[in-house]
Order: sequence, then C-alpha cells, then structure tokens
Amino acid sequence: MGMSDRIETAVRAALARGQGGPDTAAPAQLSGALGYACLPGGARIRPRILTAVASACGDSKPAVTDSAAAALELMHCASLAHDDLPCFDDAAVRRGKPSVHRAYDEPIAVLTGDALIILSFETLARAAAHDPMRAVGLIEILTRASGMPHGICAGQGWESETEIDLSAYHRAKTGALFVAATQMGATAAGEDPEPWTELGARIGEAFQVADDLRDAFDSEASLGKPAGQDAVHSRPNAVQELGKTGAIERLRDILAGAIASIPSCPGEAALAQMVRWQAERLTPAWAASAARV
Amino acid sequence: MGMSDRIETAVRAALARGQGGPDTAAPAQLSGALGYACLPGGARIRPRILTAVASACGDSKPAVTDSAAAALELMHCASLAHDDLPCFDDAAVRRGKPSVHRAYDEPIAVLTGDALIILSFETLARAAAHDPMRAVGLIEILTRASGMPHGICAGQGWESETEIDLSAYHRAKTGALFVAATQMGATAAGEDPEPWTELGARIGEAFQVADDLRDAFDSEASLGKPAGQDAVHSRPNAVQELGKTGAIERLRDILAGAIASIPSCPGEAALAQMVRWQAERLTPAWAASAARV
Repeated sequence: MGMSDRIETAVRAALARGQGGPDTAAPAQLSGALGYACLPGGARIRPRILTAVASACGDSKPAVTDSAAAALELMHCASLAHDDLPCFDDAAVRRGKPSVHRAYDEPIAVLTGDALIILSFETLARAAAHDPMRAVGLIEILTRASGMPHGICAGQGWESETEIDLSAYHRAKTGALFVAATQMGATAAGEDPEPWTELGARIGEAFQVADDLRDAFDSEASLGKPAGQDAVHSRPNAVQELGKTGAIERLRDILAGAIASIPSCPGEAALAQMVRWQAERLTPAWAASAARV
Repeated sequence: MGMSDRIETAVRAALARGQGGPDTAAPAQLSGALGYACLPGGARIRPRILTAVASACGDSKPAVTDSAAAALELMHCASLAHDDLPCFDDAAVRRGKPSVHRAYDEPIAVLTGDALIILSFETLARAAAHDPMRAVGLIEILTRASGMPHGICAGQGWESETEIDLSAYHRAKTGALFVAATQMGATAAGEDPEPWTELGARIGEAFQVADDLRDAFDSEASLGKPAGQDAVHSRPNAVQELGKTGAIERLRDILAGAIASIPSCPGEAALAQMVRWQAERLTPAWAASAARV
C-alpha cells in the first residue's frame, strides 16, 4: 500500500470507531459531520511527514505509526472546524466545499471539533495494545502540540491578545503540529523524538511562509478557501514583513536548514527527497523555481 | 489531607501545567480563562465519586488517583464552557458567576473548552510515570465517556436531532461521566473497571432526575444558573414525564439500586455512605426526606 492509501485507511478506520457502526445509537448529524470534516482530505501533509519519519527510522510497528498518523490528522481537522467558526475566521469555504458550520450548523461544528480532538487521543490509546510505552509517548507529544500553553489552542489564543509574542504565536499556531509530526514519527518507530524537533520546526516555518505567500497572491479558486485573509484579520504575514522576494528567499533558506537538520537514520536520503517534494507542493507555482533547494 | 483538599490540589496542579508558569510565553486571557472555568469549583461530585471508589479499592497509587480525579473534573468543566456557548444554552451564569463567554468572549470560551479537554488527557498521560498501564486504561475510559458515539459530545449531539433516542441521550449526556467516575476510580486503584459500571450508571440516573427536579422547582439563586431551562429548550425532564411525586420516587429507587450495586470491596460501607451523602447534596431540600434511602 502506498503512503496515501495507508494514511487514508488509518483515518477512515479511526473515524469509523467515532461514528459508530450501523447498529450503534449515535446522533446522525454529528456522526456525519465527523466524516465531512475529515474526508476528502487536504494534502494530509502532517501525517505524511509523520509516516515518512517513521519509515526513515525503520517503522518497526506499522500499526502504531498508522494510529499516530490518523490521530495527528484528526487533531488538525478538529482545529480547522473550530478555526472556521463564526467567532474566529467565519470561513464559509474549506478544502473547496462549505465549512462544517455552513454545511451543518454552529452547534454541530463545535461538537465536531470536540469529538475529533477526543477521537485523536482514543486512537492513540488503542495503539497501546501494540505498544503501551510508545502510545503514552505519542499522547504526551500530541497534548503538548495541541493544548496550552504552547500548542495550537495557545496559537489561536494569541489572536485574542493586544500584545502578541509573534515568535510564540507562530510556533504554537502552525509550528506545533509539524514538530508533533516529526516527533510522533520517531516515537511511533521506537526512537527518541528530541533529535527530530528541529526538522519539524523548520518544516512548520516553511509552511507558514508558503501559506503567507499563497494568502497574499493566490486566488480563492486555487486555495480552496478565501484568499487575502491575513490582511482582512490583521494577522502577521511574511510578505508584508519581507516583501515578495524576501519571503521567497526566507522560504528557500528554511527548507535548506530543514534538510540539513535531518538526523542520521536508515532512510535519510528518502526523507530529504520527501521534504523537497512537500516543499514544492506548498510553494505557489510562480515562486517554485525561485524557492527550489 | 481531606478529600476536598486532595481534589482541589490535584485540579490546581493540572491547571498550573496548562496555564504555564510566570516565565512561560502563553496567551494571558486564555490562560486566565482556564482557571476561571474550573475555580472555584462546584460540588466536584465526579472526582469525589472517583476518589471514593479508588479509596474503597485500596487506593494503591494515590498519585494516579489524583491525576484521574483532576482529569475528569477538567473534562466536566470543558463541557460546561462549551454547553454554555451562545449556540447551545446561551447561559449567562454558571456556578453563580458569569459563564466563560460572558466573562471573556466567545473565542476564549471555545478555546477554553478545547484546551481543558486536551489538558485532561495530558494529565492522565503524565500519570504514566507512576503506572503506564493504568494511565492508558484511564485515557481509554475518559475518551469513551467524553467523545463519540457514546460520550458527552454524543449527548449534546442528540439535541440536534429531530428524533431523539432518549435512553442513549441520557446515558451519553449525563451518565457517561458518572460511569467514567466509578470506572476510573477502580482503574486508578488497579482494579477491573467493569464491575463498577452499574454504580456509575445509577448515580448518573439519580443525578439526572435530581437535576430535573431542581430545574423544575428551584430558583436561579439556589441553582447558581438559570432555572426552568429544560422547558425553555424543550428538553426531556423527569418531572414532566412522571410528576413531582413520581420523580421523587424514581430518585429513591435509583439510589437504592446504586447502593445495592456496589461491588464487594474493602471500603464498601464507607462508599455506600458517600453515595447517600452525595444523594442528599443533589436532592432539593424540600424533597430530601422523601428521597432518603
């Protein structure tokens, strides 16, 4: 099975447990919304990085890796459902279709996020059947990356502050789940997660700059969500700070640093190639040749 | 340390980790709101039941019990912050003070719930340092009790359905966290959780009927939240179904069943006394003598 199929299978298996089977008494709308929020997916970039790192480390327990990949993607989808709510971005469109609160309603969107957060931890707890110590390590990493004081909740929380610690904001809002991706990949394969922190942090920085470029210059049609939202919401954006050329240079430097930071491991070369490939996916087509490393 | 102090200490320790120390770059409003949502507490009835069951089972690893009690209370407080949101109950008052979204705002209230859910699992994951297998068991129980298809998210989700499975609704909305309380208490003490399911379920049923009585007959001043909300939101209520006398009789029968269901254990008698005591706290004063068992 290729990596895409592997990740989709894992996400669907985790979702199926949360939605309950045909003989389960479960609220139908919320059950449907869990699937709506996660399927079809976006680029699944976080679980791809996680699975690539696990593979580079030997992937000694694939079932643990698959649970970790699914859990990380569920957490990401939960954050999208909540970030799109009227009280935050009030986004009508996500991944090219109506956001969860537009397709259903606001109560269902709040509950979808809550239930997906919980399902992500349930998915990891079930992996304890294969390896309890790895499962506990994965849960600890994902709680740090998603909660307070340094996870994606903290990142969103910074947007309510009048004085923003910009570095802490970016690390939490975007970086945290990328750091989780590399750390969880190593942990799922039984390796120490710490040496993998820098790779995740740098991929997160690259993602942020690429996202800033796309937000500033791409159209809603190519983004699958409204463009120009950083300006609308007065959010910091690298293009505003560095200009278009400066932002592209920053992106190239970060990606070079990311590849250089990959710890020595059996699959080092393949992983470097994967980072380059993800970087190309991330980068707007018009900037790709300038940003290539 | 008495049970109240023990639970408050555990809740505060868990909160402190989520809020971050004075040297931590964390968003100040969200950090404050985590504490606001949990302190001062209500009756802490769920962690009290958990701790009482753990004690009845020997409480062989008190640090695990304390983590479990704190995690369960954080999850309960998370659910209150979200249930009070404008898109659900739109409650202005909770525990005698403004609800989280009134004291702060809606974005902070959504994030407070999210961060408390995640902090509850982080608290349990940290207990793995004392006993990884018990920690994993506790996480599994809490995910089942809080998520989909049978936990408190599912309970809230039923309120969006046109046809409600009433039994599934009550089990999920109110019962699930009481079942978690008894099961987690046993698990924290290293015992099999299954024999403790019935006690939790019956306490949950009793709590629901007592809550229905209070909602129908008590004042906002004594409840610390608006009264008559079931009628306002067209929610099922035992008083409507059985009448006042019938509901009090039902409450008495359920409590007798709860006490009868307590598994044989070293602290059986003390636990029965604790259930009686909690029942009296739950029951409106004017109904107490009729409901006593």
